[in-house]
Amino acid sequence: MAKEKLVTAITSMEDDFAQWYTDVVKKAELIDYSSVRGCMILRPNGYAIWENIQKELDRRFKETGVENVYMPMFIPESLLQREKDHVEGFAPEVAWVTHGGNEKLQERLCVRPTSETLFCDLYSNIVQSYRDLPKLYNQWCSVVRWEKTTRPFLRSMEFLWQEGHTAHAMAEEAEERTIQMLNVYADFCEQVLAIPMIKGRKSDKEKFAGAHATYTIEALMHDGKALQSGTSHNFGDGFARAFGIQYTDKDNKLQYVHQTSWGLSTRIIGAVIMVHGDNSGLVLPPKIAPIQAVIVPVMQQKEGVLEKANEVKEKLSKVASVILDDSDKSPGWKFSEHEMRGIPVRVELGPRDIANNQAVLARRDTGEKITVSLDSIAEEVTKLLDDIQNSLLEKARKHRDAHTYTATSMEEFEKTIKETPGFIKAMWCGDEACELEIKEKTGATSRCMPFEQEEISDKCVCCGKKAKTMVYWGKAY
Amino acid sequence: MAKEKLVTAITSMEDDFAQWYTDVVKKAELIDYSSVRGCMILRPNGYAIWENIQKELDRRFKETGVENVYMPMFIPESLLQREKDHVEGFAPEVAWVTHGGNEKLQERLCVRPTSETLFCDLYSNIVQSYRDLPKLYNQWCSVVRWEKTTRPFLRSMEFLWQEGHTAHAMAEEAEERTIQMLNVYADFCEQVLAIPMIKGRKSDKEKFAGAHATYTIEALMHDGKALQSGTSHNFGDGFARAFGIQYTDKDNKLQYVHQTSWGLSTRIIGAVIMVHGDNSGLVLPPKIAPIQAVIVPVMQQKEGVLEKANEVKEKLSKVASVILDDSDKSPGWKFSEHEMRGIPVRVELGPRDIANNQAVLARRDTGEKITVSLDSIAEEVTKLLDDIQNSLLEKARKHRDAHTYTATSMEEFEKTIKETPGFIKAMWCGDEACELEIKEKTGATSRCMPFEQEEISDKCVCCGKKAKTMVYWGKAY
Repeated sequence: MAKEKLVTAITSMEDDFAQWYTDVVKKAELIDYSSVRGCMILRPNGYAIWENIQKELDRRFKETGVENVYMPMFIPESLLQREKDHVEGFAPEVAWVTHGGNEKLQERLCVRPTSETLFCDLYSNIVQSYRDLPKLYNQWCSVVRWEKTTRPFLRSMEFLWQEGHTAHAMAEEAEERTIQMLNVYADFCEQVLAIPMIKGRKSDKEKFAGAHATYTIEALMHDGKALQSGTSHNFGDGFARAFGIQYTDKDNKLQYVHQTSWGLSTRIIGAVIMVHGDNSGLVLPPKIAPIQAVIVPVMQQKEGVLEKANEVKEKLSKVASVILDDSDKSPGWKFSEHEMRGIPVRVELGPRDIANNQAVLARRDTGEKITVSLDSIAEEVTKLLDDIQNSLLEKARKHRDAHTYTATSMEEFEKTIKETPGFIKAMWCGDEACELEIKEKTGATSRCMPFEQEEISDKCVCCGKKAKTMVYWGKAY
Repeated sequence: MAKEKLVTAITSMEDDFAQWYTDVVKKAELIDYSSVRGCMILRPNGYAIWENIQKELDRRFKETGVENVYMPMFIPESLLQREKDHVEGFAPEVAWVTHGGNEKLQERLCVRPTSETLFCDLYSNIVQSYRDLPKLYNQWCSVVRWEKTTRPFLRSMEFLWQEGHTAHAMAEEAEERTIQMLNVYADFCEQVLAIPMIKGRKSDKEKFAGAHATYTIEALMHDGKALQSGTSHNFGDGFARAFGIQYTDKDNKLQYVHQTSWGLSTRIIGAVIMVHGDNSGLVLPPKIAPIQAVIVPVMQQKEGVLEKANEVKEKLSKVASVILDDSDKSPGWKFSEHEMRGIPVRVELGPRDIANNQAVLARRDTGEKITVSLDSIAEEVTKLLDDIQNSLLEKARKHRDAHTYTATSMEEFEKTIKETPGFIKAMWCGDEACELEIKEKTGATSRCMPFEQEEISDKCVCCGKKAKTMVYWGKAY
């Protein structure tokens, strides 16, 4: 006997976006809370998405010559303190190990919040000559930041990420690498996660502790808030001077290296949820979905139904990642469950379909159903997955563009951010005082100075003085 | 101009095996020491081996239904203390986090030495009914154990591993899974790492803290010492009772689950080094080698040599992972360097070879050279890689068998372990006192009670009382 259970409805996005988000994360079984405050458990549905992200990004990194390494998770306090800005930025939010076994340590160790200092320490040992450069290292690991308030994926005490750290002979090479990796992130997000990105540079106020310049990719969520989705930093020779990373150049002169670092974390899964999700739950772009199609047999107890369903599974497994749900739940329950998990395509197959040599394909993104012949089902599913991938990107781009506004005065700025949340493009004089004033008045921060500039006006939206640059502003996660 | 450098010779195995090991690890650039005592840096050559191990093992796990997750790296002290034997085993060797940012924590957190307690905590929340079972979770992560003395790969404060944790309805299923995963490890080690394994059960003295039974795979290193290479534990319902992990069975009765855990770590890379390595450095089995073949052009400045070398690279890249070393070092230097790194096949190609439409293939394992036609070079390299893989396993098995002895008296035992280090098969009464006495007299520990039993005699080798089981003994890393 089927044990009937109805999928509990989730809060609707329109009623309470934050609650909708938490509901989806829990009901799609992406994460679970743990006994450790602020630390989350990535359950199989959530971790499988991260595995796909890793696979795709790792391949792209390696194509640019990057090699993977693994560095210790502990940083001695004295090493963390070597670069002044860096320690100021991170020391207040690290976890400290003070005891090993039953003994008190002579020097405290922090659990890495990021690993610049460790990579610098390594590079100072292994870089001697220009022949040793560039070093293009990356690691996949977890890092810890002692956050007060946490939210699944978006902000947690421990999170998974990758951190690339490179060292170059010339300043220009470091700048090129910084931009190159930002482009790798942006392309990956657009092509695989179907999330369009604004690429730009952070203001000095928003840049990374110790960086000469920080570049960012920024996405717009369904609720009109921005999410910083990946960053790439050019350190110039600041860390090299603090850590003494020098090489002998071709003329036998001692020079400092120029360094970069760049990172993308499980936070991006939060973006996938908040860009594509709907009131039935998660919606996964096919290229990142651990399961791309689920076959749900209808009246599976009838002779021949499961047999045919298995045949179809066999066929589809050649073109997609597919499962057959032959559990003893009702088809309706299965529909809801797989929608909640965001599986892009559902294949419905019952006795009548089989008699007509056909199946029904339901798209997760639009709910649309089409009937296809079993002879060409592999081709149809392939086409549909492509279609879904493209239209998710298209939809996200339209949503973002429709929620990107301009403002030439503070009144307009304040009204817009209040009434129609989204990105605001507005001019800025470059003065941090204006950034602070805008934040105080509107809650919006400068997201980035985009590479693609427009001249909205010639005056700073805040102080009215001569504008230097156009900035994307927004409330951010 | 070529900058000539000779590869510094490494200590020979015969002179000082421990120093040889350290030399190989450093010279092959597998690891580097870090500023954190006892923590090692996995450099690209070392991490790439671990990536291949992960890829192969992960696929094998998933074929048995295992799913990956990620659990927090911190365990609250109270959670670690929940299972009595477990906390006794691990508490003396954990790192304690006592401060977050500038605040003292209300409860200390330990950095996970292993994650049984976290998985139990999760299972107690998500397992309700027999329908929720089995849970077959695994994670790839790093763990920390506060070791006094450390050695690269073999024993370090932080190391990378995978830990599988499963929960089952029935006791038999847990036992089956424990043995199944031990077999996955043993097959992987033999087929991929070319290391033959003895499978067996640990004595009570040697079993895991909190386990009902621990199974192990044991390998013999070149110097006659044993290395525990992977373990699989059956917990029975001990942890389930401590953590209250219960499910309702089909008759609506509340039952405790039965659990297992199993782990394999970067330690296994130490085994690869110590089983296959020689006085020229690392020797990697082709199936785990990040680079399987290196093309070294001879007189590369001559017209057409590099062009042909690139053609050969193109051909070989279809059947193997291949690089072309066209750096400005001398061929002799390149030979030494790639031998040190353990690359299985070297392809030598000079003007005379090209004129004869041939190349020379040199095997890393035997040093043997063969001349092959460029027309069939892809097939020849494929065959050679297969050959090397098989003969490495064969050689390791012969070495192990030749260094496996029997002893029926303590005199014989002591003489053997002193004069011809290796495994000793000897009978045991089952009494821990004899285990302790043997260890004290000989330095050897009971490695395992092998699944394949032989009756060497009917008396315990130590006390002479009636023997219960045959045990493999040895000095161990």
